[in-house]
Amino acid sequence: MTKVDYPEELRHLITHLKRLPGIGPRSAERIALWLLRSPQSPSADLAKALTAASAGIQLCPSCGFFASLAAGCILCDNPARDLSVICVIEQATDILPLERTGAFKGHYHSLHGRLSPLDNIGPEDLRIAALLQRLRGGPVREIILATGSDVEGEATANYLAHAIGKDFPDITISRLAQGLPAGGGLDAADDLTLYRALSGRRPVSGPPP
Amino acid sequence: MTKVDYPEELRHLITHLKRLPGIGPRSAERIALWLLRSPQSPSADLAKALTAASAGIQLCPSCGFFASLAAGCILCDNPARDLSVICVIEQATDILPLERTGAFKGHYHSLHGRLSPLDNIGPEDLRIAALLQRLRGGPVREIILATGSDVEGEATANYLAHAIGKDFPDITISRLAQGLPAGGGLDAADDLTLYRALSGRRPVSGPPP
Repeated sequence: MTKVDYPEELRHLITHLKRLPGIGPRSAERIALWLLRSPQSPSADLAKALTAASAGIQLCPSCGFFASLAAGCILCDNPARDLSVICVIEQATDILPLERTGAFKGHYHSLHGRLSPLDNIGPEDLRIAALLQRLRGGPVREIILATGSDVEGEATANYLAHAIGKDFPDITISRLAQGLPAGGGLDAADDLTLYRALSGRRPVSGPPP
Repeated sequence: MTKVDYPEELRHLITHLKRLPGIGPRSAERIALWLLRSPQSPSADLAKALTAASAGIQLCPSCGFFASLAAGCILCDNPARDLSVICVIEQATDILPLERTGAFKGHYHSLHGRLSPLDNIGPEDLRIAALLQRLRGGPVREIILATGSDVEGEATANYLAHAIGKDFPDITISRLAQGLPAGGGLDAADDLTLYRALSGRRPVSGPPP
């Protein structure tokens, strides 16, 4: 007797859902059944949204953020942003939290990764050549290296500082400050954070004499 | 200055992913970014699978299981299955675990729910009329009520036993056995399970005299 299982189309859908990050076999089955049983036919809407996103979005060739083919890059196409400062980040997704601070009005450059010898990721795998190309073309005054504060982020920042400093000695190269996170007591900070907070201490302006 | 956010197509995709069961805002964003950044363009494949599943699958009008429009219902169209026994389950998905046991070769009837006054689900919301219609049409000898062993499942089974027994006095109506689950010690069983295991006890055939 034939083994009873879901129809092929349903099994196929479950297989594809299972490939999504963070979705296991049970979740994939639950989602597929929900999609088929829902009266509002959400699968058609989801399929449309998927097609629209994969056809209508590309990575901006300049900054690396997600750009709409129809509307262009919201960052690079904005004439109000400061062309003289470029903030270098590891991932395009790092742009949103930086934007939420409201403290930066310049341009961005996503490396799409970071130096990681253990994963076989070297300088040629990152968008470093594109960054140097941008510096050759534009009136850039400052580069902010906003890579992570872990070992790979530090190594990437050091590599970039060297590479940029060699070719563009007039450009100021800065790095995000490291120290205590907001709202954290000293007892919650690890040794390296405390060390960096101490060595990066800043003078406090006292009351006017 | 315009608020920086993902392009509209990407936000739209995240909104649709967020509606899936068990997917929160963070997972939806992670999945959408993964779909767009993966080099194998999984979003096109997923969109195709979604369209194929929603266009090619319907619920079998007889048993209620997922049936392929192309291949038909794997259960109802199988001539080797016993037409004289119908196993009534709450959900179409209950069929797979029952099939895995290999102990049942009859037909199924999914109610697509169970009586639940608290959720405003009454007999007219379930596929009970369709079940009685099937009984009128075919040579059914036995009905197995395989609804759950919780309060709603018991109430549904009681209602069905009464409705079927009234119109079809010749049909045997049975219910899944209740008792100790396999591999469970007596200390792990709750009071109600032990009570049902005791009252449903069965004679053991002794050694031949």
